[in-house]
Amino acid sequence: MENLLYWVGLAAVAVSALTGVLDAGRKQMDLVGVVMVGCATALGGGTVRDILLDRPVFWISDQTYLIVALATTVVVFFVVRGLRLPPRLFLIPDAVGLALFTIIGTQIALEWQAPWLVASLLGVITGVVGGVLRDVLCNEVPLIFVRGELYASAAGAGALTLVGLQALGLSAVLAAWIGMAVVLAARLLAMAFRITLPTYAERDGRDD
Amino acid sequence: MENLLYWVGLAAVAVSALTGVLDAGRKQMDLVGVVMVGCATALGGGTVRDILLDRPVFWISDQTYLIVALATTVVVFFVVRGLRLPPRLFLIPDAVGLALFTIIGTQIALEWQAPWLVASLLGVITGVVGGVLRDVLCNEVPLIFVRGELYASAAGAGALTLVGLQALGLSAVLAAWIGMAVVLAARLLAMAFRITLPTYAERDGRDD
Amino acid sequence: MENLLYWVGLAAVAVSALTGVLDAGRKQMDLVGVVMVGCATALGGGTVRDILLDRPVFWISDQTYLIVALATTVVVFFVVRGLRLPPRLFLIPDAVGLALFTIIGTQIALEWQAPWLVASLLGVITGVVGGVLRDVLCNEVPLIFVRGELYASAAGAGALTLVGLQALGLSAVLAAWIGMAVVLAARLLAMAFRITLPTYAERDGRDD
Repeated sequence: MENLLYWVGLAAVAVSALTGVLDAGRKQMDLVGVVMVGCATALGGGTVRDILLDRPVFWISDQTYLIVALATTVVVFFVVRGLRLPPRLFLIPDAVGLALFTIIGTQIALEWQAPWLVASLLGVITGVVGGVLRDVLCNEVPLIFVRGELYASAAGAGALTLVGLQALGLSAVLAAWIGMAVVLAARLLAMAFRITLPTYAERDGRDD
Repeated sequence: MENLLYWVGLAAVAVSALTGVLDAGRKQMDLVGVVMVGCATALGGGTVRDILLDRPVFWISDQTYLIVALATTVVVFFVVRGLRLPPRLFLIPDAVGLALFTIIGTQIALEWQAPWLVASLLGVITGVVGGVLRDVLCNEVPLIFVRGELYASAAGAGALTLVGLQALGLSAVLAAWIGMAVVLAARLLAMAFRITLPTYAERDGRDD
Repeated sequence: MENLLYWVGLAAVAVSALTGVLDAGRKQMDLVGVVMVGCATALGGGTVRDILLDRPVFWISDQTYLIVALATTVVVFFVVRGLRLPPRLFLIPDAVGLALFTIIGTQIALEWQAPWLVASLLGVITGVVGGVLRDVLCNEVPLIFVRGELYASAAGAGALTLVGLQALGLSAVLAAWIGMAVVLAARLLAMAFRITLPTYAERDGRDD
């Protein structure tokens, strides 16, 4: 399980660094800005999870994650800049990263004896905080708050599935794969069929 | 004292989750967005305090806080959405939450042997960070920075009162109640009589 | 070395509190807002570094830093408000603060056995996070991401220089001074000659 988590983690870091760059690039940032936003997107969720659990921050105790994030952002920056990419292109890898991070986060929180609801929330946090950081750093209302195509809720469903299946005695690995499938399926179906959650009716009162 | 802090804490969490929802709703967020902003508002201040003090994060070691925050946001979301609520309605509960959190934060910091000034600041942080997070997540300049009706300063006055009274040998409980009264009185009077602090004269140079 | 780090640290805190106030003042904030943004600018980088390294937060274990930050912000607030200061005035002290914080951060991370790349990044974080926090709290895209006059990259160059020189066996103190010189020189030359990094070509797709 550890070993699986490790490689899946590296993959998730690379994938969401990619999405961070694709998104940050739209803000006319320079190389360093894009790299920093890309790294924040890739490492932010797990960092917040580790700090909340008071366990060593994963990319500080193992430099590999940081190297993967930096390399991905720099390479992607020089490969895709100038290209006119369809804005929705990065939504598929983004959904994959969401699924991977959510399940890893929940799994790690469970191993650190977090109560079930906290473990699920930490999974969601691991999955979505990177994107929230990216949007806040780009000075936007985080997309997951406004665009209702089951993002955090897809992550929550997957995390709760993982917790539930393990409680039912399923092996951690099997529960993890099923959980990932739930997140991915919920997110992709929601995007495909524009499934959204109820939104708050009131219009914005403030002047912005 | 512990017991008092506990129940007061749960009350403060519920109250500021309520204010988070009322405020976040104005941003046309969906259910998950509102829930996340509500939870960030309710749990953010205490979380930052615990991380700064390097003590276990309160809602991770005790799931009750998280359940209260989640339940409050979901219930409030479905109860008040659609209703046309006066925007200033949530200012009274908000002031109560500010007073409760500030005193709890200062008290906890003192128990963790933080120096007096640090303890007071951690109290203010516990009181105001939730709202700052809420505003940053809603992509606004945090209200407490621009609207000068004694917000952080009311919290600071209450925190310093608590620290001072305990230094004078008053019982923790009595000092806590007096401190809360100071925060609440200062904030409510400031709102009633539009008491503001001096603001910086220079106009904004940047284009926003 | 410890002693040098200590005084250099206090100087860096005062300098960046000053820059925080000069910048925050342009947002029409009141006294408390300016003080809080000033303190976040002065203490934010080191705080994030300490939390990431899981070492005691510097201004909590030693109140002096907090007192220096608070005193500087309050004094600067009353001294410069109303004055019409050239907006680029604070760029020189800002560059000095960047150099000081970056080297201190890298040095501390190395002493805490962080791997070389992590230590350099933590140095950059110590140097730039304060300014990022300031900009996010002022609801702006962090300047270091958009304005490409070698800011984080100057910090990175200095941090890597420090790490490299120490690896080559140079004394920590000497390596520190050389590292600071590198940061300062890179930043000042970049400002003087408008040296910028390549930016991402794509225009912003979102409506903001």
